[in-house]
Amino acid sequence: MSLDPALLPAPYDSTTLPIGDFRTEAGVDLPGASLRLFAFYEGSAQDAASRPVVLIEHALTGDGDAADWWTGIIGPGLALDTTQYLVLCANCLGGCQGSTGPASEHPDGGFWGSRFPALSIRDLVQAEKQLIVDVLGIDQIRGVVGASMGGARVLEWTFMYPEHVEAALPIAVSARASAWQIGMQSAQIRFITGDPFWHAGDYHGTRHAPVAGLGQARRIAHLTYRGELEIDERFGTDPQKNEDPYGPYWSRDQRFSVESYLDRQAEKLVERFDPGSYVILTDALNRHDISRGRGGLNHVLGTSQVPTMVAGVDTDILYLYHQQEHLSRNLGDFIGLSKITSPTGHDGFLTETRQMTVILEKFLTKAELLAQR
Amino acid sequence: MSLDPALLPAPYDSTTLPIGDFRTEAGVDLPGASLRLFAFYEGSAQDAASRPVVLIEHALTGDGDAADWWTGIIGPGLALDTTQYLVLCANCLGGCQGSTGPASEHPDGGFWGSRFPALSIRDLVQAEKQLIVDVLGIDQIRGVVGASMGGARVLEWTFMYPEHVEAALPIAVSARASAWQIGMQSAQIRFITGDPFWHAGDYHGTRHAPVAGLGQARRIAHLTYRGELEIDERFGTDPQKNEDPYGPYWSRDQRFSVESYLDRQAEKLVERFDPGSYVILTDALNRHDISRGRGGLNHVLGTSQVPTMVAGVDTDILYLYHQQEHLSRNLGDFIGLSKITSPTGHDGFLTETRQMTVILEKFLTKAELLAQR
Repeated sequence: MSLDPALLPAPYDSTTLPIGDFRTEAGVDLPGASLRLFAFYEGSAQDAASRPVVLIEHALTGDGDAADWWTGIIGPGLALDTTQYLVLCANCLGGCQGSTGPASEHPDGGFWGSRFPALSIRDLVQAEKQLIVDVLGIDQIRGVVGASMGGARVLEWTFMYPEHVEAALPIAVSARASAWQIGMQSAQIRFITGDPFWHAGDYHGTRHAPVAGLGQARRIAHLTYRGELEIDERFGTDPQKNEDPYGPYWSRDQRFSVESYLDRQAEKLVERFDPGSYVILTDALNRHDISRGRGGLNHVLGTSQVPTMVAGVDTDILYLYHQQEHLSRNLGDFIGLSKITSPTGHDGFLTETRQMTVILEKFLTKAELLAQR
Repeated sequence: MSLDPALLPAPYDSTTLPIGDFRTEAGVDLPGASLRLFAFYEGSAQDAASRPVVLIEHALTGDGDAADWWTGIIGPGLALDTTQYLVLCANCLGGCQGSTGPASEHPDGGFWGSRFPALSIRDLVQAEKQLIVDVLGIDQIRGVVGASMGGARVLEWTFMYPEHVEAALPIAVSARASAWQIGMQSAQIRFITGDPFWHAGDYHGTRHAPVAGLGQARRIAHLTYRGELEIDERFGTDPQKNEDPYGPYWSRDQRFSVESYLDRQAEKLVERFDPGSYVILTDALNRHDISRGRGGLNHVLGTSQVPTMVAGVDTDILYLYHQQEHLSRNLGDFIGLSKITSPTGHDGFLTETRQMTVILEKFLTKAELLAQR
């Protein structure tokens, strides 16, 4: 089995590939599913096909275009060096950036909508394995790398398909969802499903969508992605320009600067993201649990046979650093723990490019040495 | 000027007293306002009137019945010893537990509703000063004590009416709202005001109220009051009994245990709290800023002339402990910093009764010594 260069998209471009028959962990068949795959490499597809593969796993509202959202990380001479590696990233199953999700057309007509099944993190990884290994023919992945929901998928790759993963780097993630995360995430799901335009998940094709609920979810989610230090340094108690939040009556039009910022975050997500995908993928995060059906949590971590390096952010309130320390103490083939120091919180893996570069270079150096064993 | 015992409610009971003319910081007149005051003491009102006064400031959704919500703190032989002190606590202006708020009747008929003005923390303190000093005739308060929104009022007491405060203990609070708090709090306000039953604030007396929005706000707020450690130890990834959140399709009826817990928190608040009051008081928290109109923040803190002790909780993500350290480094007459160590987070002042008792006893001992100077 080897990678057929003809299947690769052009450099920094994407292609959408069917993944074949798919059944979810909870037993629902999902016919006609496909994933949209981006490939980042220099030179010809022929050249790229001979390079070691780095597979990136994107976060909840990310997508396959990793060179776009992981600024300064992917390219010639950068941490994920596109002259040395074939860097791949696929929009996950359930997403809305070209892969099959609730907003996709159903093979029987109409949109998937409420017919789209719940997915676990394991389902997302199974779909991706069908794409990367079974369809593309990539047998060995030098490194699987990702943060947040991407990190959860990295971990599952190491337990589900260790034979295909030479080394793994989960970032800003935990061995299982914490109750606090489930609380925050479930509340966000309910904002969307409680929106009058949710229509039990079948709003696609109508003239309305539960965008108010999605905006509510994003405002709260964003505050779990960003640290108090960073937000406060940027906005403090500043009023938004030409608005007065200290007026005689409360008014929705008189905002603090941070409110305006959160409104923009909500508007931007609403423009590019399907509320149904947000529900499905947030629910998958709630279901994240390395131990489910496998045994005790630390026992399961101890059975890991894939060399795994772990990274986290010191100010992360969503995936607290002690959760990465927990992984580091229990993973069966642990090769290093790195702390990103940042005022930014969870999103530090996106903003601290210099530190992230050091971590990725160290990881790939170790992975190369291990591959030569 | 001295306290008239005839004005005191019976022990552990309450009375509602008019506070006279009131104008908000932003210039709105609020005719006919009154506050509901609880008094906690042993023996006769005559005896109690001769004791030093401890004034408790309640948190956002608290009320005047402090012996009810501050369990194990107020009573004979407890930290706030009702045989030694006259302990008072008034439901704040804008509240819904007997004091004038949006759900109260307007002097011109109907409910206050949208006619109820925005309030600042300073407004809440001014109203309370009119009650405690001007109406009751209490000239000296031995200690003003409170946490969270209560702590913000404690701080404002020391800047607005230092001549009436012998010592102060603000707990789990900051010198001003942080942008992260404003973000979280503004989002909560918008959940309520975006509820179709909000009716621009004039839902009182209709058959509906924006209780779904209030529930949404409570779920999120509660997760900012409770630490990740405590929530996770209690709930982890447990499903709610007889429900299966791992089923083939996402369903609102199949919950994790923590979701059920948050639903209960929401239901309980909806039963006892007016959404309009929640908006007014949350907005007051957004406006909390010791420095507004007074000068630079640290300069203003330095001008404080009231002996002030500060306490906080190590795991608080809403009012981070560094915010209490900031107060301790800048207050003009600082008399001590205490750290409550707890998995609970912000609500540690409610749950860590033993530690809170040590802090309160130390505070009152210092306050007594200072009063004898």
